[in-house]
Amino acid sequence: MNALIPSVGLTLSPNGAQNAAMPANISHFTLANGMEVVLIEDHRAPVVTHMVWYKNGSAEDLPLKSGIAHFLEHLMFKGTKNHAKGKFSEMVAELGGQENAFTSNDYTAYFQRVARDHLRVVMDYEADRMINLVLDDATVDPEREVVMEERRMRTDNDPAAQLQEAVQAALFTQHPYGRPVIGWGHEIETLNRHDAIAYYERFYTPENAILVVAGDIGHEELTRLANETYGKIPARGAKPERLRPQEPPARAHRLVSLSDEKVEQPSLQALYLVPSVSTAKPGEAEALEVLSHMLGGGPTSILYKGLVLDQKIAVAAGAYYMGTAVDDTRFYVFAIPNDGVTLEALDAAVEKILEAVRTTPVDAGDLVRAKTRLVADTIYAQDSQASLARWFGAALATGMSVGDIASWPQRVQGVQAEDVQKAAEYLQKQRAVTGYLMPKEP
Amino acid sequence: MNALIPSVGLTLSPNGAQNAAMPANISHFTLANGMEVVLIEDHRAPVVTHMVWYKNGSAEDLPLKSGIAHFLEHLMFKGTKNHAKGKFSEMVAELGGQENAFTSNDYTAYFQRVARDHLRVVMDYEADRMINLVLDDATVDPEREVVMEERRMRTDNDPAAQLQEAVQAALFTQHPYGRPVIGWGHEIETLNRHDAIAYYERFYTPENAILVVAGDIGHEELTRLANETYGKIPARGAKPERLRPQEPPARAHRLVSLSDEKVEQPSLQALYLVPSVSTAKPGEAEALEVLSHMLGGGPTSILYKGLVLDQKIAVAAGAYYMGTAVDDTRFYVFAIPNDGVTLEALDAAVEKILEAVRTTPVDAGDLVRAKTRLVADTIYAQDSQASLARWFGAALATGMSVGDIASWPQRVQGVQAEDVQKAAEYLQKQRAVTGYLMPKEP
Repeated sequence: MNALIPSVGLTLSPNGAQNAAMPANISHFTLANGMEVVLIEDHRAPVVTHMVWYKNGSAEDLPLKSGIAHFLEHLMFKGTKNHAKGKFSEMVAELGGQENAFTSNDYTAYFQRVARDHLRVVMDYEADRMINLVLDDATVDPEREVVMEERRMRTDNDPAAQLQEAVQAALFTQHPYGRPVIGWGHEIETLNRHDAIAYYERFYTPENAILVVAGDIGHEELTRLANETYGKIPARGAKPERLRPQEPPARAHRLVSLSDEKVEQPSLQALYLVPSVSTAKPGEAEALEVLSHMLGGGPTSILYKGLVLDQKIAVAAGAYYMGTAVDDTRFYVFAIPNDGVTLEALDAAVEKILEAVRTTPVDAGDLVRAKTRLVADTIYAQDSQASLARWFGAALATGMSVGDIASWPQRVQGVQAEDVQKAAEYLQKQRAVTGYLMPKEP
Repeated sequence: MNALIPSVGLTLSPNGAQNAAMPANISHFTLANGMEVVLIEDHRAPVVTHMVWYKNGSAEDLPLKSGIAHFLEHLMFKGTKNHAKGKFSEMVAELGGQENAFTSNDYTAYFQRVARDHLRVVMDYEADRMINLVLDDATVDPEREVVMEERRMRTDNDPAAQLQEAVQAALFTQHPYGRPVIGWGHEIETLNRHDAIAYYERFYTPENAILVVAGDIGHEELTRLANETYGKIPARGAKPERLRPQEPPARAHRLVSLSDEKVEQPSLQALYLVPSVSTAKPGEAEALEVLSHMLGGGPTSILYKGLVLDQKIAVAAGAYYMGTAVDDTRFYVFAIPNDGVTLEALDAAVEKILEAVRTTPVDAGDLVRAKTRLVADTIYAQDSQASLARWFGAALATGMSVGDIASWPQRVQGVQAEDVQKAAEYLQKQRAVTGYLMPKEP
């Protein structure tokens, strides 16, 4: 519960349909109060996945109040006018269900998976905490200590996490993606009940929420249930705006390095600021996705083959593209050096490989294999109700439409070698952030 | 006019008094509407320096509105209900006077120097534009283009300035000192009349202003003039708060590097985040000031002797401490390599010198000479009416008292060798930002 999940690893390949038409098993509608609803019908088993996504994440945290989105996610389990603290979670457990919640840069989401007959009751509870949350100091103050402890455990004692925070802050000097989702320790310490209530009242509104239900339920029944639960919450007016400073053009290279005695395995990462699926020009995001797969998606990828298999200077290497984001986002490249190889040498070898990708067309066979694999992934993914629900939620919460999601595989199929080469132009070292994690020198 | 002056170089050594008592020629009082007044009497010549300081600088720019403090400084010359655009400047010129204005991280100030008989008229005009500024699109829109052009000239075409922006943003990832005073281009472009008026109404109030007059005028006369001019402006209520995110503890080293074909002379800089005079524990700021002088204050300094004279690997080297700041601030070290010396080699040599300073007590004779020189500087500085006025304005606008300023030389005198060595602990490379400016490699 209350897991803190960064958007890393959310690839945008949610649907196996081969054309942009809405797949027959998916419906998308809006309640009278402005709340969006997505239904992904799946009658293979009598279970449902129920999620509510709010279109606010850590990037909406106000200045001086970093961590408030994540803190409120914790507080959402603390009871309402109608249900005592912990009652919702207990109820889900008693029904043999699962639950979770997560905060990311761009959204906050709440999740339950239950037998289909129990859908109504989790909808009742979730709708209740959208409007009836009760917060007092006796609840808020100890929970702030829980979050501080979570931060100490995950970040303050972990040099890799510390480097990660410094690297993100170096890439996003102005944009709030540069702040950790959990918040800075010295600001978490100041969060109080008033901050939490103000945040809750601003963002936890039907206009700002998306209901995603996947599973064994039909359109008519879900419409009725949604209207009887969430539909009763009065509209609050306009949905909250996302107001985010954007990055100025990057002009310098930034190398962020951290040495610590707790580091046993040095590692190298490079971050490039690239368009997201929501900010890219047509075709760019698809090309970046294919590029990330070709460069670093497993043991047949260019980086792995080059660094691990051929040159034997790395024990691992990869790349990924955090495409699902409201604003310009990160393309990551990483590598772990083999014994006796310096990070500087590995860094130079990575740069040489990227330069080759930028200057020579990618191999046609590799390209076809990458695209086939990406499309196949989206088809396999349909087997997991929860993954599918999560993909839809994340995509809709960051500005895509259901049609965008449905047409994604087709658009990936359309990527040409020259698109990939052009996308690689974004991977310019002189404007990137490189991170070195190193053991402490004696 | 409208010069954009960063706080760099404002040392805090304004007064030659050897004890903390208020010097006889200085008086400090507050008008009924909350405006502070400082008079520095100086009857050597029949001239006066007149300054109004507002306690808001670029660090008060709202998110998405960087550059508004500086933009408003430009707009303050565009006329009021009572005086047409340009009239104030014309009048000062006709009187044979000088004028200037500047925006910094922490304050914005307006300055005139005129014959003493003309003080009243500049006070009338300056008070008038504190309350009667008139802004319309016909004035604001072209001035925004002037600022954009100023930015293009000074920064966008100058690799050293670009590196400077990137280095500041790397040091201050959260704190607004990381934003350039002039603003980011993509945000300046969006500034409009409404932004300017909102900013003006929030910050240009008597409660937020300090009048500093230095020159040939007595306390009684200035009190009367101040009450008849600024004193007539109604109080607006509480003074605006400075709301600034602070930096989390730095844990990684950041190397920011920029290569450009326009660079002919490579250079090295290192920035350390240190307490300012306003945030330091007792004695720390004084020790940092002495340290900066010993390390890098001229040709007898440790860095200059070591790098330029002894090792002959640099053609210039120095250090300075930007002590006058509301929040934690920068300690700079810089060096320019001799022909054939790499920045990496120079960087390592600088680090070696700093390590020696951290680990061995500074030379007692050097310490005495540094302190004597710093105190002497404050005495010589009294000869310049305008410098003195500026020191007082900057110090008061960043949170010091007149007493703090008066006791500064005495406190510098009290700095001991161990204080300097302890202050050098702040110069830890593993948490600093290093900047490399390099010619483009062929």
